[in-house]
Order: sequence, then structure tokens, then C-alpha cells
Amino acid sequence: MVDMQIIFLGTSAAIPTWERGLSSIAIRRGNELLLFDTGEGMQRNYVRAGLRMNNKTKIFITHMHSDHCVGVLGLLQTMSLQGRQTAIDIYGHPRLAEFLQENIRIINFRLEFDVNIHVIYEEGIVVREKEYEVSCCEAHHSIPAYSYYIRELERPGIFNIDEAKRLGIPPGPLYNKLQHGEDITYNGNIIKSYQIAGPPQPGRKIGISGDTRPTDKLIDFFKDCDLLIFESTYEDEKYTKAIESFHSTATDAAIVAKKSHVKKLILTHFSARYKKVSNMIKEASAIYNNVEAAEDLKIVTIPYRSIYE
Amino acid sequence: MVDMQIIFLGTSAAIPTWERGLSSIAIRRGNELLLFDTGEGMQRNYVRAGLRMNNKTKIFITHMHSDHCVGVLGLLQTMSLQGRQTAIDIYGHPRLAEFLQENIRIINFRLEFDVNIHVIYEEGIVVREKEYEVSCCEAHHSIPAYSYYIRELERPGIFNIDEAKRLGIPPGPLYNKLQHGEDITYNGNIIKSYQIAGPPQPGRKIGISGDTRPTDKLIDFFKDCDLLIFESTYEDEKYTKAIESFHSTATDAAIVAKKSHVKKLILTHFSARYKKVSNMIKEASAIYNNVEAAEDLKIVTIPYRSIYE
Repeated sequence: MVDMQIIFLGTSAAIPTWERGLSSIAIRRGNELLLFDTGEGMQRNYVRAGLRMNNKTKIFITHMHSDHCVGVLGLLQTMSLQGRQTAIDIYGHPRLAEFLQENIRIINFRLEFDVNIHVIYEEGIVVREKEYEVSCCEAHHSIPAYSYYIRELERPGIFNIDEAKRLGIPPGPLYNKLQHGEDITYNGNIIKSYQIAGPPQPGRKIGISGDTRPTDKLIDFFKDCDLLIFESTYEDEKYTKAIESFHSTATDAAIVAKKSHVKKLILTHFSARYKKVSNMIKEASAIYNNVEAAEDLKIVTIPYRSIYE
Repeated sequence: MVDMQIIFLGTSAAIPTWERGLSSIAIRRGNELLLFDTGEGMQRNYVRAGLRMNNKTKIFITHMHSDHCVGVLGLLQTMSLQGRQTAIDIYGHPRLAEFLQENIRIINFRLEFDVNIHVIYEEGIVVREKEYEVSCCEAHHSIPAYSYYIRELERPGIFNIDEAKRLGIPPGPLYNKLQHGEDITYNGNIIKSYQIAGPPQPGRKIGISGDTRPTDKLIDFFKDCDLLIFESTYEDEKYTKAIESFHSTATDAAIVAKKSHVKKLILTHFSARYKKVSNMIKEASAIYNNVEAAEDLKIVTIPYRSIYE
């Protein structure tokens, strides 16, 4: 398993404040970086966080409101000036493609690397890598919007070669069967896969809501997340405003977290009107007990899942 | 005369640093605001500087490199969210019009006010207001770029009504002539305009270079500025790099300031490689003696011009 860290690069909704930049979340997984939204100015916290300019990087945009996407322009520019040569992959709605193509055409970016734009036309798995996948689900916002999760794939158990030798099993196809969960018969004895290979190791799952009202679909989508990062634009007293603007309250986020049986909830995307978010933590805690507030440059490490859970 | 202040909203070249945001300069003149360039993220310093969202505002873009223009998108968005209803005027190259039109189309800004885009096709006076004008001149950069100045118009002298009465001149057309510099004959006596109206009051002139190499044309354009704000991307030891990238050194800026007979020079647009700019101040000071370095949120008040200069 590789280390996985979340770094919050921007945690304010719509308008930046003194302490909070516009929406952006980085997930560092081994040597790879996954960015979820790139609000204006996120490159400053990107640099402050010590994130590298030439890593393997994927960018996922939840929706095309300016406070979630404009910062990608400056990030691409800076990456290019810093000598990036590795292609970058960017995922989002059809409008994202238009936004990138038009701006790359109009502003002379002189990009030195390829920008691969992947248009997402429907929900489902967006990226399938060897060790993880990223999936998206329609959110419920004022314009088309996606929520995402990244989920590590289950890994085969650890192969106990000493035990295999002790039982006299010859290396080769039988080892392979045992490793992949298949029981075998050898010398008339049934040998169970779990005796040799141990149980498969579960992967971690991180959910990112983007801007949305809570929905049953999302509750299902975020099921069993190790960490759910959910937007929390308003306190309860602005519930009507949350509904009107297709945003969530801290309570809404907590309800999703509880129903989805996630292990931990982090609130983010706070309206600029709130100097402190302690009230939101209080409101959410009344419903769900493992909740924290994001802040710019906060780092959260995701522990490995125990195979005994 | 009204008060005039410069507020630096971003002073870094190409890439933002911990202390410096991307290029943007605000000139507050009475109740009006003139912005020169809007680098990504400038809205944060705009808010920090206490600048208002609903003032009469003009924005001038020097050129279409992303670090000089992208921030206008977030600024417009925030102005709209904050309830701006006053139209805004934006001036720049034809590409600026395309940039604004395309982004306003692609991103759903829901702007609640008019954005008047003024394409500048050639050098000369761009804005002619009652009390001042803004003029532009071709700069010498890697893409089409303008330098700007704002110049207050000369105001008629202060009319000494007591003296006019003492000489028995009747109010009306004769007052008007005297006020506007015309000598009159009254009761057989020649009355000089300056006896009654005093000498005309000169206006102030502020020059903004944008990104450029120094040129003779610019030296002429910036003649007699009260303040010249000139880009200073590099120290002398990067002179070759300055030439190659069509930027200036601190020494280049000082030479322009000296030849233009400006009263004060402020250097800005420093390459992110420089943690300190004291070397640049030293290099410029060897040539021109009234030089300062800009920093984010620095405020400079422009004194009135004395009529006795």
C-alpha cells in the first residue's frame, strides 16, 4: 500500500477570504497527484504545500462555476514556466473542454506539455488505474455538477511462501491460483487459498461532494468511505438559502455521512460570511460524531484499512 | 483637486510567491477606481485593501499573458455576488474582448451588471473624462502590449471673486473670460486673467509600463510623470534574459525614469526567483535617485502639483 494524504488548497465558497482560498483539494497518493477543483489562486497554496510541478497529475473538475475552475489556467501556466514536460489529464463536463480549449487558444500559454482533456458525459468510472479508480455521480446543483470518489482496488493477500513450501506445493500455476483466491487440491489434500495467501487487503475510498444538495444517490455513492469531504456552505439558520442555491448545510453533510456509514467527515466550502465554523461543527456533531472542518493547507493522512475490519 | 492613491495589488512576475501576487495596480482617484492589469488572485488583495465592489471602475489590461489578465474573471464574479449593479468598463487588445466574451459565455457568471468592453486598436488617448485622460503607447514585449498613463487635465486657477468685485467687474461673461485665461478690457483698463483667476493648476501624471523593454517611445510617453511604475523583472546579471524575454532590469527602469524626468520611480513585477529586491533598488539608485520597490498592499499617495513648480 502507498501513503495517501489529502491537502486542502482552498476551502472558501464563491468568494475568497483572508484565510481561505477558492475550492481545491489535492490527494497525494504515492508519487501521483489528484486535484479536485482548481479555484482561482489555488496555485499559491499548491506551491506552499510543496506540491511538485512535474508529477503525474490528474485534475477533476466538479462543475463550471468560476470559483471551482478558473485556477487551472494559472496552474498550467506556472507548470509550464517551471519546466513541466509530463502530460496532464483533466476531467470534467463538456464545458470544461470548451473553457480550456478557448483559453489556451486566446491566451498565449506556450505550454510545453500536453493537456489531455477528458469529457465526462455520464456517471460511472472515469479513471481505471492499476491500483485505484475514480468514479463520478451526478450531484444536485444549479448547473450540471459531479461528485467524485477515488477508491483503491482490493489487493490480493500477502502470499506466505514459507507455508506453501512447508506443504510441498511447487511454484507455478498453483501458487497463482492460491494467490488469487482459488482453493486447490494437491496430493489429495484441499488447500484453501486463505491458508497461504491470507485475506485480500481492502483499499481506501475518499469521497468529494463538490457543490450539491444531499441526495439518496450520493448517499449510495459515498457508501463506506474512509473519508468524505462534503460541502458545507451554510449553517442551519440559512437552510432555505441552502435549498435555493443548491448547496448544503453542515447538518445536510452530517446526514449524508451518517447514512453512508463513512468513517470520517470533513466539512469544507464555507460561505465567506462565516468567520468561524465552530457552529457548523456543532450542528454536524449532533448527528454524526467524527467530523472536522477543513482549512487551507490542512493535511489529513488516510490510514490503511485493517484487513480485520 | 481630489486625492489620488496607488495601491499595489500584485507585484510578482509570471508566478505568484508567498508574499507577492500576480500583477495588478489600483489607482483610487476620488470615488473612482482605475485598475491596471488583473493577475490571477488579485481580488484577494482588492478586498484586503478595502476597495469597494460597487464604485465607478475602469480596468486597463496591458497585454494578454495569463498572469496579467486571468484575475478579472474572479473579480467580476465576486462583484456580481456582492451585488454590483454599476456597469464596468474594460480596455485592452482585441484578444481581451475575445477572452471576456468567451469566458462570460462558457462559465455561467450570472453577472448583474454590464461589462463594457473597449477594444484599443491603436495608441493614443483611450479615455477622456472631465478631469483626466488615460493614454496608451505600444510597449515592446513578446506579444502586443500597451503601456498607459493617467494624466489629470490642467484646471483653471482659483477665481478671486473679492478682487473681481474690488475692480468693479460685473459677474457674467467677463468672469468667464478671466477664468479661462483671457485678458479683458473693462472701463478702459486692461485686466489680466492672472490678476483674478490665478495661474492654472497643473494635474498629476502616473505612468504604468506593463511588461516591456525600455524604448525611446516610452521615454517620451512617460515624460514628466509624478510617478512612474515600471516593471523590473530582473537584476543586471540577468540582462541577457531580460532582452530575450522582452522584460526590463531595474537599471533599464531607472534609465527610463531619468530620461523621462519623472519625479519618482517605483519598481514592480519582480521575478519570483528574487526573495529580496534590495539589489535591484541598489542598481537603480546608481542611475536615478528617487526609487522604491513595490510590495503587495503598499499604498502611495500622489501629492498635488504645486503651481509654482
